[in-house]
Amino acid sequence: MRAAVLREGRMVYRDDVPDPVPESGQVLVAVRSCGICGTDLHFAAHGDEMLALTEQMADSIGAGGMKVDLNNDVFMGHEFSAEVLEAGPDTDTHAPGTLVTSIPVLLSSRGVEPILSSNSTIGGYAERMLLSAPLLLSIPNGLDPKHAALTEPMAVGLHAVNKSNVQRGETALVLGCGPIGIAIIAALRFRGVETIVAADFTPKRRGLAAAMGAHQTVDPAQSSPFDTAKPDVVFEAVGVPGIIDDVLLRAKPGTRLVVAGVCMQPDTVHPLFAIAKEINVQFVLAYDPQEFADSLRAIAEGEIDVSPVITGDVGLEDVGAAFDDLADPERHCKILVTP
Amino acid sequence: MRAAVLREGRMVYRDDVPDPVPESGQVLVAVRSCGICGTDLHFAAHGDEMLALTEQMADSIGAGGMKVDLNNDVFMGHEFSAEVLEAGPDTDTHAPGTLVTSIPVLLSSRGVEPILSSNSTIGGYAERMLLSAPLLLSIPNGLDPKHAALTEPMAVGLHAVNKSNVQRGETALVLGCGPIGIAIIAALRFRGVETIVAADFTPKRRGLAAAMGAHQTVDPAQSSPFDTAKPDVVFEAVGVPGIIDDVLLRAKPGTRLVVAGVCMQPDTVHPLFAIAKEINVQFVLAYDPQEFADSLRAIAEGEIDVSPVITGDVGLEDVGAAFDDLADPERHCKILVTP
Repeated sequence: MRAAVLREGRMVYRDDVPDPVPESGQVLVAVRSCGICGTDLHFAAHGDEMLALTEQMADSIGAGGMKVDLNNDVFMGHEFSAEVLEAGPDTDTHAPGTLVTSIPVLLSSRGVEPILSSNSTIGGYAERMLLSAPLLLSIPNGLDPKHAALTEPMAVGLHAVNKSNVQRGETALVLGCGPIGIAIIAALRFRGVETIVAADFTPKRRGLAAAMGAHQTVDPAQSSPFDTAKPDVVFEAVGVPGIIDDVLLRAKPGTRLVVAGVCMQPDTVHPLFAIAKEINVQFVLAYDPQEFADSLRAIAEGEIDVSPVITGDVGLEDVGAAFDDLADPERHCKILVTP
Repeated sequence: MRAAVLREGRMVYRDDVPDPVPESGQVLVAVRSCGICGTDLHFAAHGDEMLALTEQMADSIGAGGMKVDLNNDVFMGHEFSAEVLEAGPDTDTHAPGTLVTSIPVLLSSRGVEPILSSNSTIGGYAERMLLSAPLLLSIPNGLDPKHAALTEPMAVGLHAVNKSNVQRGETALVLGCGPIGIAIIAALRFRGVETIVAADFTPKRRGLAAAMGAHQTVDPAQSSPFDTAKPDVVFEAVGVPGIIDDVLLRAKPGTRLVVAGVCMQPDTVHPLFAIAKEINVQFVLAYDPQEFADSLRAIAEGEIDVSPVITGDVGLEDVGAAFDDLADPERHCKILVTP
């Protein structure tokens, strides 16, 4: 079958990937749409560093780290919607043709494996993949499967907002309006937060932030967002060195900072800034299954409109070019891959 | 009157400081005892840097920064007990001779001023000082005023523990058993936490940690404290660069890190470690007036025994030498100044 795989730092097209065969408890599905995530871009560019960092943490996490061999093809794609084709042996699931999505986890005889970056477990940048019957959620309300593919990134935003414990009357500042920042803005609006300020250097992203629910947008090249807002909660969704320290310096006493941007590099902070103001920093990752289901429901019921987020749609042959295009923040937010 | 003042980076003895005169609402007191705090040591050695850092934050804090001129004598000493001498005009207060303590804040016609580092407001390294009548707490139960002088540092520990929301059945790890770490250990024990692990490089401090309530102590030179404990809550009470990142690397998922050590220098962290494990970092400072009162009560009722903490007692003439002695962690925890 056809797929796009990571090989030597580039996404390349293959038409010779063997079809996966479902075990008991698994379901073979045809991918209908799969979003390209910043994590995939990072992994393509800096996979060796990411693997080394996760290996360092393996003891504390109690997992074996990510066992990925960068000298072999790597499957990725964890923001997918799909159509059920057939179930594995002795497996009850939705009827063939049902549109579904799932948290990106595969249960198998080898254990629990994230569908993220793997030499063996196929992700959403492929014609077909395996999912786990107990984890399938059917896509309701006739929702377009392209929109359903946004369930995963929107769940990331919902989780960050839930962890912040932000209240409706509080002021929230979102730094960075890439896909994560946009998902946070959508979730803040969904939760009824009444003052949402969004900051980004590019006009296109500020426009998207406004379309997704930001009440005010700020260009940090013109003035610090902290001059516009005195936020109670700050969401860091940039993920480059220096941002956290700037928040610690400028935020008011008692600020809650939620770090959702994934900064891969070492970063320098002044603990004294945070101590003097008793700042709380909550680092966040992913979501829980309930948040994933809530995200799907909110999109399907029109409470979160994801259509402005989708700025491109490519086939498997063009995933490599799409990875390149996503480097330009003026052009794209979310590109979908439609096999 | 006599006092020890900071002059050109050293504590020097003076016998020619004019007696302070209480305004309305203020009370003249005779200092009975004043603890030397690590903040004072930092300020003596790095006052210019501390002033520059607080000046940077002045806008966000909404205060004018610390207006201290290092080219003139600086009064310090914020961990004091005292005896009431006389009240200012039209001021009702405790009878002369009453033993008191207070949060280190002076209310005056110029506003609210911390009693911390000042060219004009005299602190506890002096024969006499001014306090604010509404803030005075009388020392109960015939408590030794030397022990009452520990109210302030013990309140710092109580506040850190309160902010952590640690539960009795959780495991707490305290990194660093200087005065702040010791106060945290005492507060954890006071709150009934059942597993308190303390780490410090020096045998003397580990012994003190055990005396104050730690159930286990670890020498980090022998093994990482994270090999001994899988803590739910980690208290960072070292305050040197590198510690926070080591916690982010080694802590288990969901760890709450309370940063109570005051690291003045820039510090390098790997945000990815914290993101991967959704670590929460609560930076803490000081205490609120209720925590200060709770600390005094706990000491006076024997629920926290501070006597092991006191390792030295000097007169005003010897404050400079005491500052030097405190650099050696094998010799001292808390030195009191008795004017």
